[in-house]
Amino acid sequence: MLQNTHLYYGGDYNPEQWPESVWQEDARLMQTAGVNLVSLGIFSWAKLEPAPGQYEFAWLDRVIDLLHQHGISVDLATATASPPAWLVRRYPELLPQDANGTVLHSGSRQHYCPNSPHYREAAAALTRQLAEHYRHHPAVVMWHINNEYGCHVASCFCDRCAAAFRGWLKARYATLDALNEAWGTAFWSQWYGDWEEIFPPRKTPTMANPAQQIDYKRFYSDSVLALHRREYEIIKEHTPGLPVTTNFMGFFGPFDYHQWARHVDFTSWDSYPDPNDGVNGLAVNAAAHDLTRSLGGGKPFLLMEQVSSQVSWRPVNSLKPPGQMRLHSYQAVSRGADGVLFFQWRAARAGAEKYHGAMVPHVGAERSRVFREVADLGRELQTLDALAGSRVRAKVGIVFDYPNWWALNLESKPAQLDYLSRVLEYHRFFYDANLPVDFVSADGDWSGYRLVLAPHLCQLRTGVDERIRTFVRDGGTFLTTYFSGITDENEHVILGGYAGKISDLLGIWVEEWDPQPPGRILHVQWADGTHSEASDWCDLVHLQGASALAVLTNHFISKTPAVTQNAYGKGQAYYLAAQLDAAARTKLLSSICRDLDLEAPVDAPPGVEATLREKNSSRFLFLLNHTNTPADVCLKGHAGRDLLSGKNHNGRTILAPQETLILNLD
Amino acid sequence: MLQNTHLYYGGDYNPEQWPESVWQEDARLMQTAGVNLVSLGIFSWAKLEPAPGQYEFAWLDRVIDLLHQHGISVDLATATASPPAWLVRRYPELLPQDANGTVLHSGSRQHYCPNSPHYREAAAALTRQLAEHYRHHPAVVMWHINNEYGCHVASCFCDRCAAAFRGWLKARYATLDALNEAWGTAFWSQWYGDWEEIFPPRKTPTMANPAQQIDYKRFYSDSVLALHRREYEIIKEHTPGLPVTTNFMGFFGPFDYHQWARHVDFTSWDSYPDPNDGVNGLAVNAAAHDLTRSLGGGKPFLLMEQVSSQVSWRPVNSLKPPGQMRLHSYQAVSRGADGVLFFQWRAARAGAEKYHGAMVPHVGAERSRVFREVADLGRELQTLDALAGSRVRAKVGIVFDYPNWWALNLESKPAQLDYLSRVLEYHRFFYDANLPVDFVSADGDWSGYRLVLAPHLCQLRTGVDERIRTFVRDGGTFLTTYFSGITDENEHVILGGYAGKISDLLGIWVEEWDPQPPGRILHVQWADGTHSEASDWCDLVHLQGASALAVLTNHFISKTPAVTQNAYGKGQAYYLAAQLDAAARTKLLSSICRDLDLEAPVDAPPGVEATLREKNSSRFLFLLNHTNTPADVCLKGHAGRDLLSGKNHNGRTILAPQETLILNLD
Amino acid sequence: MLQNTHLYYGGDYNPEQWPESVWQEDARLMQTAGVNLVSLGIFSWAKLEPAPGQYEFAWLDRVIDLLHQHGISVDLATATASPPAWLVRRYPELLPQDANGTVLHSGSRQHYCPNSPHYREAAAALTRQLAEHYRHHPAVVMWHINNEYGCHVASCFCDRCAAAFRGWLKARYATLDALNEAWGTAFWSQWYGDWEEIFPPRKTPTMANPAQQIDYKRFYSDSVLALHRREYEIIKEHTPGLPVTTNFMGFFGPFDYHQWARHVDFTSWDSYPDPNDGVNGLAVNAAAHDLTRSLGGGKPFLLMEQVSSQVSWRPVNSLKPPGQMRLHSYQAVSRGADGVLFFQWRAARAGAEKYHGAMVPHVGAERSRVFREVADLGRELQTLDALAGSRVRAKVGIVFDYPNWWALNLESKPAQLDYLSRVLEYHRFFYDANLPVDFVSADGDWSGYRLVLAPHLCQLRTGVDERIRTFVRDGGTFLTTYFSGITDENEHVILGGYAGKISDLLGIWVEEWDPQPPGRILHVQWADGTHSEASDWCDLVHLQGASALAVLTNHFISKTPAVTQNAYGKGQAYYLAAQLDAAARTKLLSSICRDLDLEAPVDAPPGVEATLREKNSSRFLFLLNHTNTPADVCLKGHAGRDLLSGKNHNGRTILAPQETLILNLD
Repeated sequence: MLQNTHLYYGGDYNPEQWPESVWQEDARLMQTAGVNLVSLGIFSWAKLEPAPGQYEFAWLDRVIDLLHQHGISVDLATATASPPAWLVRRYPELLPQDANGTVLHSGSRQHYCPNSPHYREAAAALTRQLAEHYRHHPAVVMWHINNEYGCHVASCFCDRCAAAFRGWLKARYATLDALNEAWGTAFWSQWYGDWEEIFPPRKTPTMANPAQQIDYKRFYSDSVLALHRREYEIIKEHTPGLPVTTNFMGFFGPFDYHQWARHVDFTSWDSYPDPNDGVNGLAVNAAAHDLTRSLGGGKPFLLMEQVSSQVSWRPVNSLKPPGQMRLHSYQAVSRGADGVLFFQWRAARAGAEKYHGAMVPHVGAERSRVFREVADLGRELQTLDALAGSRVRAKVGIVFDYPNWWALNLESKPAQLDYLSRVLEYHRFFYDANLPVDFVSADGDWSGYRLVLAPHLCQLRTGVDERIRTFVRDGGTFLTTYFSGITDENEHVILGGYAGKISDLLGIWVEEWDPQPPGRILHVQWADGTHSEASDWCDLVHLQGASALAVLTNHFISKTPAVTQNAYGKGQAYYLAAQLDAAARTKLLSSICRDLDLEAPVDAPPGVEATLREKNSSRFLFLLNHTNTPADVCLKGHAGRDLLSGKNHNGRTILAPQETLILNLD
Repeated sequence: MLQNTHLYYGGDYNPEQWPESVWQEDARLMQTAGVNLVSLGIFSWAKLEPAPGQYEFAWLDRVIDLLHQHGISVDLATATASPPAWLVRRYPELLPQDANGTVLHSGSRQHYCPNSPHYREAAAALTRQLAEHYRHHPAVVMWHINNEYGCHVASCFCDRCAAAFRGWLKARYATLDALNEAWGTAFWSQWYGDWEEIFPPRKTPTMANPAQQIDYKRFYSDSVLALHRREYEIIKEHTPGLPVTTNFMGFFGPFDYHQWARHVDFTSWDSYPDPNDGVNGLAVNAAAHDLTRSLGGGKPFLLMEQVSSQVSWRPVNSLKPPGQMRLHSYQAVSRGADGVLFFQWRAARAGAEKYHGAMVPHVGAERSRVFREVADLGRELQTLDALAGSRVRAKVGIVFDYPNWWALNLESKPAQLDYLSRVLEYHRFFYDANLPVDFVSADGDWSGYRLVLAPHLCQLRTGVDERIRTFVRDGGTFLTTYFSGITDENEHVILGGYAGKISDLLGIWVEEWDPQPPGRILHVQWADGTHSEASDWCDLVHLQGASALAVLTNHFISKTPAVTQNAYGKGQAYYLAAQLDAAARTKLLSSICRDLDLEAPVDAPPGVEATLREKNSSRFLFLLNHTNTPADVCLKGHAGRDLLSGKNHNGRTILAPQETLILNLD
Repeated sequence: MLQNTHLYYGGDYNPEQWPESVWQEDARLMQTAGVNLVSLGIFSWAKLEPAPGQYEFAWLDRVIDLLHQHGISVDLATATASPPAWLVRRYPELLPQDANGTVLHSGSRQHYCPNSPHYREAAAALTRQLAEHYRHHPAVVMWHINNEYGCHVASCFCDRCAAAFRGWLKARYATLDALNEAWGTAFWSQWYGDWEEIFPPRKTPTMANPAQQIDYKRFYSDSVLALHRREYEIIKEHTPGLPVTTNFMGFFGPFDYHQWARHVDFTSWDSYPDPNDGVNGLAVNAAAHDLTRSLGGGKPFLLMEQVSSQVSWRPVNSLKPPGQMRLHSYQAVSRGADGVLFFQWRAARAGAEKYHGAMVPHVGAERSRVFREVADLGRELQTLDALAGSRVRAKVGIVFDYPNWWALNLESKPAQLDYLSRVLEYHRFFYDANLPVDFVSADGDWSGYRLVLAPHLCQLRTGVDERIRTFVRDGGTFLTTYFSGITDENEHVILGGYAGKISDLLGIWVEEWDPQPPGRILHVQWADGTHSEASDWCDLVHLQGASALAVLTNHFISKTPAVTQNAYGKGQAYYLAAQLDAAARTKLLSSICRDLDLEAPVDAPPGVEATLREKNSSRFLFLLNHTNTPADVCLKGHAGRDLLSGKNHNGRTILAPQETLILNLD
């Protein structure tokens, strides 16, 4: 984990794009801006190894020494994110291929197949050289493996991958009989009599085998993870004491970050909310912070990249207005970040990202609003050492499961179901309510939670049902929704009534699904006599012990249950059989939270985020006013001194527009 | 043709997906559900021939014997729809390629090029083994060739296809001079001096040669048909007395079903209307029944596949509400089906179609609404032996011509024109009016019809004009519409005035076409003083003997004819020069039908289908109330006993919501 | 340049598509229609060289002799636009490939890679044969190189192109150091150590290097231009006195027509406005005439192709109503065309363009409205010899710069910005105002202009800033808009404040860009107290000598300048920092024009075009009424005789609907 006693501040630094004369100014400006950490070398392979085996580190030595002289630490990259042109020319077969067999060429970045031995060996060799060379340099305080693994090449389908896939399958299934059973190859005459008959799910006439597709996602996530692990292990051989990370990308679908997170010392991610997305953008960004923190087991994480002003890859890239970058930065810190970094230090003058904002813009530092805000924030963060290492503690977990996501994205199902959006809808309730929440895997550790939600957990891997059963039996509250408990890890349907193996604890079984066409409204009648609406889908539920909190009144099955509750052991299990509207969902979840004594730290109007970080006996209450109007907040008995202004607050407090408070609670 | 004395009922049965212990339950449940026919082996190749030439039929023997013991007959498939993995590995060149040269790989189904000798020989060998092995088995009452030919791979562009295309062209044209003339290769310097210079219409810089494209469609349809014929002939060698089919797919574009239908003993098709499509879905489904019956020369056909509950391949797959599956089944029977089958018997637990509904759903038979409806219908159909072999007789034909469809889909024309939608608009009139209608080919047998409609018959093959002339001269009524009679079978424009060779019998010639932009309305003034609207297109028509029933009043050609009528011989020829709105089209067609004494069997409100089936002296009047309200129907003098309820009806009758009557008319 | 003493009239003639018996009728009808020039041989390669090196010109001799006997001249094509099938079969590697490596096959046209030596040599050999054979034929009055270069294949990415690209880069950069610097290859580790490591910008994982992309566009434009130049030079060897052209396509993006225009003796283009596009279609068509004239240095150009009635490649191809083709023809002449030609003479009966209109339609000449209008116009043009050689003289130039267009189309930038649409918005003001305008390149000759507009000139090549400075210093008025002066020719950002090297003459510098999301309105307050709206984008401008004519009132930077004016030397420089609405843009430009005494020749209502052509002491005033109502025009002191009617006009005149006047001014 991170070993900091202060908050990190800085960004990606690409000195190789600039003459050395600029480096001195960079170091000076970094000091001005309170920068204490830069990520270095991410795209330096060609400069570090301009010809095969010819390593040239002198320039990087000079950069790191200069930074060190200015008191700036280094997050040193393994520089393997973009292989150099000579490597591609020598081994063109390392280029990845899409499902059509189309080659992805060099000329941008990430043009490598993870199963290419040529790429793998060259990357490992460079990593080893760097680790050996810089193992003792005092400026290097952490390592950064590669960069945004998979962001452009979410999969490769080449012959090397095919061979590696066969090896992976042999390790998973041992026998072809087991594979044939798992993949259901009796369907459509897909039975395999020889391992060599198996291929990646390349372009096919129609829908490919679902289990093959899911296994290929698992395999490919593992393939890239193996790259990461190789570099990780080389670094750990040389600098076992330094923390290592690779930058994640929030709700990135291709890789199973729950698996990946086991192989970093701390988590980090790159955050690029669209300033035009308003409150929803803030909520989704908060969710990604929560995910990153959760992936790291609750330990402090780093905001590895954000932009100072505007990105360059959206159709319209509006500026963050004054103050917004600061608020975004504090949102990260309030949710567990121990550092705030930018892509990048100095705006590039050439290349595909030259219009991407930076800490030092094209106009230069001196007369730039953006640099002023950057430097102001940097100096401010220097006063917040007390926060370092403190943690956010949540009593609520939301299951976010990657293989389930992959399964719900397969072509053929009762209806299209956007898993991520649905999970974020549930997170949104807790975001709005200022209740802390973690994201957990279906087979993770739920012991700290009072409430776990598992929306649309279609694929229930072996053993997960028993984990849920234990959680509820021991007093936990569990909530799941339609199309859950349908399949096992091989995407085989559990027969005999849907909800399958969790049917018993839910106290229901589902006979049929009835997806609804867009625009068709289902009427929901609640036990308390109130009414609401639902849409998109409804299950046809049979009660088997549960009670119906609400029923549908306009379906062909009269009064079919829409929401059920079942007491099981010491806990409760809820089931939502239809897509309730947001108001009804909020009402139900509020009621559940009340029952569980889950309460926000303050009473605040919409647009104000309130979160707590804790360390030993210290508690820090963050209040962020994202609105452009003053916000009247009731502190509900809390009192303390604001770390930013030094002022004391108790009772009520009025936050100015865009104001942030960090109360060190008494 | 079919040789049944009762109606068939059953579905696709895939026992290879289940342990043998389930087979006994299957047989028992089939009896419960009145199943008397199952389609077997469609995707069993890998199981029947797990290694090259190693045939393993014992398991299938056990299945068929078991079914036979339970009185269930078998529609035995040739099992060639999805080649096994070992065949692909041995001959990867059998994989098809799209126009870009992208290979379609194994891992789904239908991954074969029809011109691959390896596929062809392996499929023929398997078919021969099956035919020999099961030739004497009493349970096997019909054969099922392959499955849904072409549904995923509508074309292949590989080098084998290129070579086969050259052979096909040599057979068609004999000389390159003839080909160059037919293809108009003087255009764009496309002249061929050697057969080897000719390729399939792969991806080109811009629009490919139209005649080449049409010929490639003809060739490819023939290529796949050759696969079918090879298997058909092998089966006929062994069991000349058993009827053979392959399942069609309604209005499927890539293949010329008029050609194909000559090579089956009876027609069958797979019907999947969307329950959310309402009345239009029913009308289109009825049209596809009419097409299937027409392709089979009016003989009874089989509904080879439908779903009990919901499919899994639409974005939203809503349930059929209770009763709808039964109504859909009777719609098929009322339009000439002698059997109703489902895909599939037992819902798969794995594979790409595991969420597709079945007769026995995942929840099992015992507590399933769906199974109850399936079983109720099966038992009901057992009481309807009297219907077997009866026929629908139509006095109206609609020309539906595949090469014309292909021609209208070419890139370059006066305006996009959706042939299928337009043809269905004309069918819809007759559907709503409860008037029976056949679909006919442009060069089919029209002798039984009083009225033939040929909407948008752009490509008029040599000789068709004379067939139309004879039909009208002998007293027939013919109606065609704008952009008809434009080209010959090589897509050469007939010069000297459009409508070309049928200009004389229509009594008009067309000087220009004026396609209209979306939203522009043309005003139509009728000879009787009434007005209506038109859109999309208008011809600039010159009368040459015909009279104008309506003219356009707001075109730059003042009072250009919109609808014309011409007496020719003993008959009449109508021409619609613009796209009339639906009300005007209905009015015109109603008037024509009145003139021809074409009359519905009953007076029924909208949503009630009325059709007649006849056999020897028996006549069966079907009345289907698709609405959720009672329907008051005037029987117009008909009277008879309802085969379902045993009750007698005459005069008027009230159909309950969703009720079906089948009156055996006195 | 053209050497005509009369206006040309005719079209593409493709006699090889017709039997010789039709040729006689063609010649006769051409005489009837006033045709005096046909383009011949454009797609005749296969007929002229049916086998390698076997040239067959006898048929073409007969055609040209026949035309000559009828007084019809020939624009003889080099016939290289569509290589014959035998050449493709012999050298399949000449087929082009897209960025995915997908081959574009034969079967349509333009299926060649410009860097294929096989194509190049075969094309040159054919050209040489034609030039030698027809060098002395009196009917041949001009040459037509290839046809619509690049219209379907805007780029090729094959290995030959890769090799040629390396050669081109060596010539441009000499050293890899220079290339690495120019391309900014320090970014994303793209540094090249060997020329062989460089490839075309094929499909990459994400955004390719911008400078590589721009250079590939330059290279590819040059590659195709080299084809043209080769043929041009061969022809000039044989017939140095005959003018040579290749037909351009208006605002065609892939090639830099400013470069190309240096290599033709006169310009020509193919004009296909959509009759459903209304006045905007007319304005854009007028702009393309202005562009073609400008590319030719103001000399008369040819309208090489238009359609008589309707094209066939749009989704809906409406007819030109009676009179519209004549108006379109006079629009061309009024803007500098010395000839009006059609694609094509006789409508094809086969092939991909058989539904494309022609001078002689499918119905034949005799009873065709279209042919009547064609012949009427032909005869009318015979009376307008006086116009030949006269010129349009503009005092306003609009910079239209191809590399800038390419740069603005790159993936990554502050916001999507449709350069062409924006340029056309500025042209539209002058079109509506009946003020003549030229299009100029950023580094062209601006000496004749009082006002030059350079909208969105992001890429400012080295030296252009000094040219602008000189132009303004010497008294010119210059107007540019946001996102100008940002990069150099290698797409390197000019640092230190945007507007970069033209910051001084504009009297401003720009700190940031703030692209606006769709629908967000910026409020503009003008110095005169009026208000208007803006959208899409605003710069955050600092005044440095300029004055603000308008400011934004609702941006987070209060009163940030929206429009600025700066006196520089004897001239003025305007800057638009936001996208003003059309009314405000019109008001500002009107004011600038008034200041410069730029005035329309007449006062006319909307829908009437007024232009002047001049020759020696003659001036011809064109008045075109595109509306369907009479138009009252004030001649503002002009008087003269209408060349068409012979009538004299002065003071005011009323134009009938769709009337054209051509006043020979006194």
